[in-house]
Amino acid sequence: MRPSSSPSERPYGGLLGHLPGDPSLDEVVGDRALVAAMLRAEGALATAQAEVGLAPVAAARLVARVAAKAAYDPDELGAAAAASGNPVVPLAAWLARDVAEQDEAAAGWVHRGATSQDILDTALMIVAAEATGRLLARLDHCSDALARLARRHASTLMAGRTLGQVAAPTTFGLKVTGWLAGVDAASRRLRDSRARLAVQLGGPVGTGAAWSPSLPDLLPAFARATGLASAVPWHTERSRMVELATSLGQAVAACAKIATDVIVLSQNEIGELREGAELGRGGSSAMPHKQNPVGSVLVRAAALRAPGLVATVLSAAVHEGERATGAWHAEWSPLRELLHLAGGAGALIADVLERLEVDEPNMADRVTGAGSVMFAESVSRALSGPLGRAEAQQVVAAAARSTRRTGTPFRDVLAADPRVTAHLDAAALESCFDPGVHVRAAADLVALTLSRRDTPEDR
Amino acid sequence: MRPSSSPSERPYGGLLGHLPGDPSLDEVVGDRALVAAMLRAEGALATAQAEVGLAPVAAARLVARVAAKAAYDPDELGAAAAASGNPVVPLAAWLARDVAEQDEAAAGWVHRGATSQDILDTALMIVAAEATGRLLARLDHCSDALARLARRHASTLMAGRTLGQVAAPTTFGLKVTGWLAGVDAASRRLRDSRARLAVQLGGPVGTGAAWSPSLPDLLPAFARATGLASAVPWHTERSRMVELATSLGQAVAACAKIATDVIVLSQNEIGELREGAELGRGGSSAMPHKQNPVGSVLVRAAALRAPGLVATVLSAAVHEGERATGAWHAEWSPLRELLHLAGGAGALIADVLERLEVDEPNMADRVTGAGSVMFAESVSRALSGPLGRAEAQQVVAAAARSTRRTGTPFRDVLAADPRVTAHLDAAALESCFDPGVHVRAAADLVALTLSRRDTPEDR
Amino acid sequence: MRPSSSPSERPYGGLLGHLPGDPSLDEVVGDRALVAAMLRAEGALATAQAEVGLAPVAAARLVARVAAKAAYDPDELGAAAAASGNPVVPLAAWLARDVAEQDEAAAGWVHRGATSQDILDTALMIVAAEATGRLLARLDHCSDALARLARRHASTLMAGRTLGQVAAPTTFGLKVTGWLAGVDAASRRLRDSRARLAVQLGGPVGTGAAWSPSLPDLLPAFARATGLASAVPWHTERSRMVELATSLGQAVAACAKIATDVIVLSQNEIGELREGAELGRGGSSAMPHKQNPVGSVLVRAAALRAPGLVATVLSAAVHEGERATGAWHAEWSPLRELLHLAGGAGALIADVLERLEVDEPNMADRVTGAGSVMFAESVSRALSGPLGRAEAQQVVAAAARSTRRTGTPFRDVLAADPRVTAHLDAAALESCFDPGVHVRAAADLVALTLSRRDTPEDR
Amino acid sequence: MRPSSSPSERPYGGLLGHLPGDPSLDEVVGDRALVAAMLRAEGALATAQAEVGLAPVAAARLVARVAAKAAYDPDELGAAAAASGNPVVPLAAWLARDVAEQDEAAAGWVHRGATSQDILDTALMIVAAEATGRLLARLDHCSDALARLARRHASTLMAGRTLGQVAAPTTFGLKVTGWLAGVDAASRRLRDSRARLAVQLGGPVGTGAAWSPSLPDLLPAFARATGLASAVPWHTERSRMVELATSLGQAVAACAKIATDVIVLSQNEIGELREGAELGRGGSSAMPHKQNPVGSVLVRAAALRAPGLVATVLSAAVHEGERATGAWHAEWSPLRELLHLAGGAGALIADVLERLEVDEPNMADRVTGAGSVMFAESVSRALSGPLGRAEAQQVVAAAARSTRRTGTPFRDVLAADPRVTAHLDAAALESCFDPGVHVRAAADLVALTLSRRDTPEDR
Repeated sequence: MRPSSSPSERPYGGLLGHLPGDPSLDEVVGDRALVAAMLRAEGALATAQAEVGLAPVAAARLVARVAAKAAYDPDELGAAAAASGNPVVPLAAWLARDVAEQDEAAAGWVHRGATSQDILDTALMIVAAEATGRLLARLDHCSDALARLARRHASTLMAGRTLGQVAAPTTFGLKVTGWLAGVDAASRRLRDSRARLAVQLGGPVGTGAAWSPSLPDLLPAFARATGLASAVPWHTERSRMVELATSLGQAVAACAKIATDVIVLSQNEIGELREGAELGRGGSSAMPHKQNPVGSVLVRAAALRAPGLVATVLSAAVHEGERATGAWHAEWSPLRELLHLAGGAGALIADVLERLEVDEPNMADRVTGAGSVMFAESVSRALSGPLGRAEAQQVVAAAARSTRRTGTPFRDVLAADPRVTAHLDAAALESCFDPGVHVRAAADLVALTLSRRDTPEDR
Repeated sequence: MRPSSSPSERPYGGLLGHLPGDPSLDEVVGDRALVAAMLRAEGALATAQAEVGLAPVAAARLVARVAAKAAYDPDELGAAAAASGNPVVPLAAWLARDVAEQDEAAAGWVHRGATSQDILDTALMIVAAEATGRLLARLDHCSDALARLARRHASTLMAGRTLGQVAAPTTFGLKVTGWLAGVDAASRRLRDSRARLAVQLGGPVGTGAAWSPSLPDLLPAFARATGLASAVPWHTERSRMVELATSLGQAVAACAKIATDVIVLSQNEIGELREGAELGRGGSSAMPHKQNPVGSVLVRAAALRAPGLVATVLSAAVHEGERATGAWHAEWSPLRELLHLAGGAGALIADVLERLEVDEPNMADRVTGAGSVMFAESVSRALSGPLGRAEAQQVVAAAARSTRRTGTPFRDVLAADPRVTAHLDAAALESCFDPGVHVRAAADLVALTLSRRDTPEDR
Repeated sequence: MRPSSSPSERPYGGLLGHLPGDPSLDEVVGDRALVAAMLRAEGALATAQAEVGLAPVAAARLVARVAAKAAYDPDELGAAAAASGNPVVPLAAWLARDVAEQDEAAAGWVHRGATSQDILDTALMIVAAEATGRLLARLDHCSDALARLARRHASTLMAGRTLGQVAAPTTFGLKVTGWLAGVDAASRRLRDSRARLAVQLGGPVGTGAAWSPSLPDLLPAFARATGLASAVPWHTERSRMVELATSLGQAVAACAKIATDVIVLSQNEIGELREGAELGRGGSSAMPHKQNPVGSVLVRAAALRAPGLVATVLSAAVHEGERATGAWHAEWSPLRELLHLAGGAGALIADVLERLEVDEPNMADRVTGAGSVMFAESVSRALSGPLGRAEAQQVVAAAARSTRRTGTPFRDVLAADPRVTAHLDAAALESCFDPGVHVRAAADLVALTLSRRDTPEDR
Repeated sequence: MRPSSSPSERPYGGLLGHLPGDPSLDEVVGDRALVAAMLRAEGALATAQAEVGLAPVAAARLVARVAAKAAYDPDELGAAAAASGNPVVPLAAWLARDVAEQDEAAAGWVHRGATSQDILDTALMIVAAEATGRLLARLDHCSDALARLARRHASTLMAGRTLGQVAAPTTFGLKVTGWLAGVDAASRRLRDSRARLAVQLGGPVGTGAAWSPSLPDLLPAFARATGLASAVPWHTERSRMVELATSLGQAVAACAKIATDVIVLSQNEIGELREGAELGRGGSSAMPHKQNPVGSVLVRAAALRAPGLVATVLSAAVHEGERATGAWHAEWSPLRELLHLAGGAGALIADVLERLEVDEPNMADRVTGAGSVMFAESVSRALSGPLGRAEAQQVVAAAARSTRRTGTPFRDVLAADPRVTAHLDAAALESCFDPGVHVRAAADLVALTLSRRDTPEDR
């Protein structure tokens, strides 16, 4: 047997699996974990049948014990799976063989009444439950970090940017509040998806005829033995897979919003945020001076890959008849890949947030310095009463163009324009350039959001 | 002004818009409906500002009244939108102009404090709320029809088919129960997504500075005036769009599972289901004898198109800064397309179910006639006690091959095999071929599912 | 009949169709154009049958004449199409009716031997040939503009940026050369796809039995009459659709690379490029000072939407039997949407390039000023001989960190470091900071690329 | 060092990697192969620099020799890659260390002038060239098998089926000709994509400044040393990746068309094709009688997964600046996955074709027996002269409905209808039911296609 660090345990380890990836999830998503989950499902099936009186207790115990100890090699199982098209056919045969070595009759209770899909679907649910449990803990950790960051920077003045251009003042805390809302929404939806993860048990075509009329008792017993929820057979009703995949995609996107803002604000010319340095991290093979926002870059890579995988799970959600001719097989890899990518994105963002450096002076300078043109909307609003909206906008736009062309500060251009001074005296014009109103508005929204978040049902 | 049947009201009307399409949804999703929703948002903004004391009541009333009456041509608005990249810029300008015609000062209250995205996002929410409301009603209608169908056919024996091959007996009612579970799951998730549809209002960069410190009061007032939920600004937090899109994709997939089974079972050689004829429906331009399952075919077409659109909305969910450089614009078309496709799929499936013809004798004959090989699993299970699982399977597989090769009925081959007769007497063998156990098992599951469904919280 | 500006002619006109969109393509891709193409195919079929002696010449002429004059309303045709699932069924019936009004017997030659798919596939090919012809002309125009731009700026020094960080010097011309290579590659592949656009003619199941044994002559005659290439029936072999869709997706991506670089370099803090102003273009509804890179933003929106549509066409490429149960119907909308998006992206980029403002002083300042750290790779390379690669990188990285921390210019830090001065004298260090070597290297590559491009076969 | 069968060599081995998968491709696509390709690129770079006089020959030879012998563990390299975000950073460091052990000065020539992307892009090209070479050989093998099959069954009568319903007669050979055309088209496009696979070499930002002015000589030398084509730096121009990915997707779809037809025609009720049995292949874990079309099912699974991966590569094709913030990293996994899926699909289809069993009597019976309604189009065509197209269709449709309702053979219903007999005598009616015309028409098309195929330029 291989040592536990064997690469086959980590389908997403290997050369590129860490980019992005979450080693702590690979341990529950990897090949060895999936084999263990299939064996757990086989053991639980025997146990449950004994519990409801369908199987002899001793035989069931033996099956469960042998299943718990078995550690079939994923590569060998994979090779053997090619003939039947799924790994449960050889796994059930091997398990029956190993049970038979101790008690030939007991081997008859292995996989009894079940079909391959019962075992593999249930095993994927076990894997998903464990992986999403860990991911949710990590997202909660991120949410807490974000809430703290939002509170700390509720009034940290910075430039808002729209369509790539500086726009109007905001605060860094309000930006972070948006990040937080995205993570919270993804967690909520993922939690809902996770609550539906359930055992699948129905036999060849989903009637559970082999267990009739005890199936209504067998299902909850099987659920208890696996730690999942109980459900009537859902072998061709793939909403659980769809909801899981779409929630994971949403979680990756929520992380990628943060990553993208970090990358934009880390550009040397902006320099308002920085992924904190760590020795050897973010380096380049050619350019020793570079400090790349590697964590954020990898999260964006995950966000580019997730939508195609979500689309695949959705394309594969239509299972014809009582077992699909391809759609079932198409789900396995993208579902695991999404668990892996979402786990990696969550882990990377948690790390980025922990190491994030905020350059408050740079943020503030951007607003009060050359960027004062970003108060244009305030001026325009103040003028739109007397001048009307259209003319007010024209006056302000002309001033902005003049600033761009001549370099004369925006406020000075306005102060020299009789169309402005006719309606706004010096104090009124001054007040248009007061960052305070923006900061207060933003801080109010941060407070409002955080206070609602403390009420559990809104979370 | 154009008459109400103008094509521009139906972006998804036209030549191919009905394939698939839901005219009743187009009426709320179409261009004219979206323009109306934008105008409604502008009117509601004025109204809400007056309500919280930020705007004069008379001016707000005028704005709301002019907005309610305006019916800007979508094509003209679209052409004017090219310069700024969104249709709100010209719409707000035209509305201000029309208000100014009656009261110049009041025009200053049009769009005051808002940004284009506030209006367009809110308008899309209005459209989505209306369209999903109708879709949910239709899905509920389908669920009811499916529950009735499941109950009626709970014990209607038919062949279960896996990987395209006849497998083991089931009942049509149990198959329908799976269809029902898919539709119910999609409804549940869509209802959850719909509950989060909310107004967006934050001004240029989302601080709502123009309304500070009244924004906490203004938001619920704006929500009331539009009929949506209230929410803090979410302009760059796109979870609502993602949840809406993924739910719609799930709904289409749930309909497509039904459609696919109808198509498979309508093949001439199977002939167990048929989309009921209607004069002129399902015809071919070349083959007058054909009765094509057109409704189901169109639903499958919708299911092929939805995943790519869902992936697009997910790809576009990462909005950098305070307004994205493309991601925002990329959402509009796929979201409307998904509302349209899901609406069409729902309407078509409702129609298919209404006209569905079930050929019960054909279904039963398939199981009891030549297909008796589908009781192989029962025989194998009965033999696996005495023979062990592996040998039992070999014996039964050999008999099945013999039947395939020689045409001798499966039961006769078994009855002549001493490895079988040594352990199963005639009665025991006979009982393996009893469809009753399968029918009872299936009917139990149908009853279990329907009874749970009657408990509201499980629905 | 509607005037030619009727909205139904532009399925992608309407409210949002210009964002992005190419009105000049809509004219050939729109509903009215597709109806005209279907009628042209019906007319050509009659003409071709007469040419090979399968139909009376007079009847064929009448059919072709009536088809050429018919202008069926797309909305009415679309509504009538719902019953059969495709618009050819009513179109052929209406055409036969209109021919019969003049000559009852001649009506029998309408659509004779053909199936709906023959007409619709051929019509889509006609539309695609016209639209891609225009798009290729536009891409060629872009290529020429890019080649001129690359030549003009072959030696325009600017900062190269990797992973969002300033990296090392390059020239604007070399960057443009990359843009050009992408556009040229997309054109090449699209041209190849276009060369395969061909008539589809095979009758109900593709045997062309109605025309046997004249089909080998009929196919080229039909091709001549439509202006397309000839081909044996390909009704369930969808490589033409796949190649068309993927080429269009590639073209959009090539445009989006340009758009993205324009957006990044237009950020106020960088200010090296700008979408040239035009009165009323790029404006904001709230912020009168803003000059948004609207053209580039819309191209990026197109690039976010194209991959999902390409995936849909690929998902729909598997047509079972002799006509698919959904996959055929699923192609129509995404193919037209891709023609529309690629056309829009091409038109927008052509416009952006025409109006592009290049701020050469800003570009150069970035390299020679504060950004001199971007010569770090040169220094590191110079030191790696004497110090070894690893130590050289450490020394330079430490100097860069010191610059970041203290603000001391990078060159001064290095000049004060004995590990540097031990191996590089002042002149050697100076030469590491010579932008000339970078400019010459870049200019050489520009020249090399442009000279190869002049050789037709490399284009 | 691990033995060559180590699982880390096969990222797509493991538990599910064979479903579908091509072990012979994994050997060139796997982690160990990619590491070897990166080392080959590093060695080739040193060799090429020596060749053009930029590096000392002895040092270059040592670098190449050490690189050729190195066999860094993919898992260790992957773990080390996390810090910098790509595996080349540690690989180059390790290689320099190993070279330095033998000659410290020579280590300075490792990776000299290059950036990580040069090495990884070139290595992916090496891997893609090898994998697509093998895939093309396999597709050619399939084409040959298909051409033989088409020729053998050119006149094998069978039912054509459209929209899931029997439609009109065709031949199996003509169906196979369509399969062949799809495979040939995919091969052609893939061959074109493969011809563009080229080295990437440009240094940090693509100017190749370190090698200036020798780059124009260095590029072809580097190309020769790697076995790839030469090209100017294309680091942010990703058309090669897009063309490779879309061609692979097209190849999978071409295989899936075959697989889908095999599955449909293998249904027990149709029984016209069968994936030939092989002991232990296609078995079920629960139903010993089943012979599942496992090969075809797995190909369909591949076809469900490929479009999402193609969309991902297309989404990731926009690389901003001189190195993208995520798009580059997002390409690696989907490209390798596509090579793997296309390889698996090609291998599986080759195997399916080899084992395919064609039941000619079943095929013929379907047309001449109960299915004679599929001659309806011929009858309708014969009647459309005298009756006009519309009435002819009505008469025939009514007869078909009568057959469906009463079971009276279609021909008898027609022979009893005075509207038919008034225009068609017994012989004329009989000739409408002659399968010969369909067989001849189909066989002609088969011959036409195969003869064109023998002309190389049409292939």
